[in-house]
Amino acid sequence: MSDIKDNAGRVFMRATYYENSPEPSDQEQGLPQPPLERPADEGKKIIPLTKADVLKVPATDLRKAIEERHSVRAYADEPLSPDELSWLLWATQGVRKTGFAMGAHRTYRSVPSAGARHPFETYMAIRAVKSLPPGIYRFLALEHALQEVDAPRPDIASEIAALCKKQQFVEQAAVTFIWMADEYRGFWRYKARAYRGIFQDAGHAGQNLYLAASNIGCGVCGIGAFDDLPLARWLGADGASLFPAYAATVGKLKR
Amino acid sequence: MSDIKDNAGRVFMRATYYENSPEPSDQEQGLPQPPLERPADEGKKIIPLTKADVLKVPATDLRKAIEERHSVRAYADEPLSPDELSWLLWATQGVRKTGFAMGAHRTYRSVPSAGARHPFETYMAIRAVKSLPPGIYRFLALEHALQEVDAPRPDIASEIAALCKKQQFVEQAAVTFIWMADEYRGFWRYKARAYRGIFQDAGHAGQNLYLAASNIGCGVCGIGAFDDLPLARWLGADGASLFPAYAATVGKLKR
Repeated sequence: MSDIKDNAGRVFMRATYYENSPEPSDQEQGLPQPPLERPADEGKKIIPLTKADVLKVPATDLRKAIEERHSVRAYADEPLSPDELSWLLWATQGVRKTGFAMGAHRTYRSVPSAGARHPFETYMAIRAVKSLPPGIYRFLALEHALQEVDAPRPDIASEIAALCKKQQFVEQAAVTFIWMADEYRGFWRYKARAYRGIFQDAGHAGQNLYLAASNIGCGVCGIGAFDDLPLARWLGADGASLFPAYAATVGKLKR
Repeated sequence: MSDIKDNAGRVFMRATYYENSPEPSDQEQGLPQPPLERPADEGKKIIPLTKADVLKVPATDLRKAIEERHSVRAYADEPLSPDELSWLLWATQGVRKTGFAMGAHRTYRSVPSAGARHPFETYMAIRAVKSLPPGIYRFLALEHALQEVDAPRPDIASEIAALCKKQQFVEQAAVTFIWMADEYRGFWRYKARAYRGIFQDAGHAGQNLYLAASNIGCGVCGIGAFDDLPLARWLGADGASLFPAYAATVGKLKR
C-alpha cells in the first residue's frame, strides 16, 4: 500500500542527501551573507508595536496550552488589539538579540531555526486589528514594528480567502499570517536542503502561534492549501526567491 | 544576490503547485486509507507509559517557556524518568482521541497536522532513561506506550551521533527523538504536496518538544543534519516510504 511510485517529494529528498549534493555552498565559497531581514520599503508607513519588555500578556500554564490546543475555524467578529498582535508576532518571530557564529550574522528568536538562518518575512492580511486599516502588512522583526505594505484594502478578507482555496473560515479571521520564506538566507549555507528547514521553521512558528493565541482568547488554524504563485504576487513577491511556506488564521474565540 | 539558479527546492515547490499537479489523489480515486499508525512489531517488548490523565508535570508559564527557549547543546549526565519521557511524547505526538472526517479516519493530537494526517512514527535513540536499557525504541502513539525496537545497544550514543554528522552534543543527550515520516499517510490525500506538511508537522512537534522540555528541567536541540539513508536503515526503515524528517536531542540541564 505504501509501495507508491516515485514523486516530487522523493526526488527532492534524494537530491538533498549530503552524498548527492557535494558541491560547496555559497557560504563555503566565500560569497556574502544576505541580510537578516529584507529592507523596509521606503516611503511606506512604519507602525511601532509595544516591545516585549513592556508588553503585558495574561499568564497561562504551558501544559494547559498544549493540551487544549486545537484548530479553530470559527471566530467572533471582534478585533484584536495592537498589543495582542505584538504578542503573536513576538512569540512567532520575535528577535531577542543578534550575534555572530559559524561565520555568519544571526538573530536569536522566540523560535528555533536551522542554523539560525531564520528565513521568514512575516506578512499579514489584517481584517480586524484596532486602529489599523484593513490591508497587507509586514512584520519588521529587527525593529519589532509593522510596515504597511498595502492598506486600506477593504476587501482584504475575501481576497485572502480566495487565495487560500476559498476556505470559508479565512474570511472570518481577524488576521491571516503568511510566513514568506526568503530562500537565499538558508540556501546560502545549506543549498537546496534549506527547504527542509524552511518548512520545519514554519512549523515552529505555527505551533507557537497556536499556543500564544490561547492566552489572549484567540483561536488559530494552520493553512497549507493556498495558490502559491498568486498568493506570492498578491504580497509583491516573485514566488521563488520569496515564497509562502505556511499560513495561519487568527481570530477571537466565540463566547 | 538572491537571484540564485534553479535548485531541487524550487523544482519541488513548482511540482506541488495545485495547477501543476491536477491528477486525482489516491483518496479521490477511492483507494483505501493507510492505517493511522504502523503496526507494532510482533514479539517485541511493549513498555507501558503513564497516561496523560494521571501524569504529573510541574507547572510553567507559557510565556516564560516561549521567551526562555533556546537550543541546548550540553547536558548533565543524568537520566530522564520514564514519566518525563511520557510527558515529552504526549506533548509532541500524544493522541487525545480518534475520529472520522473528510472521508478519513484521523487522530487528534497535541500538535496540529495538515489535514490531520499525522504522518509520524516517533523513534528514539535512548541513552539514559531510568529502567530502560539503552537502545532504539518507538512510540506507539495510539497505545501511549513504547516498543523496544532494538535494545540493549550499549553504543547507542556514539552510533546516533555518528549518524547526525558527528555532532558532539548528540552523544551526550539522554534521548534523541527522530520523527520518521510515513509518506503514504499524507500522500494518500495530498500527493507530493504532503511533503510540505511533513516538514511543517515536524516543526510543530519540535517546537512542543522545546517547550515541554522546559518544565522538566531539560534542554533540547533540533537537528536537521543527519545522513538520511543510513539513519533510516539503522531504524529499520527503507528511507523512502518511511524516512527521517527531523530529529532533536533532549537532556537534563547542567546545574
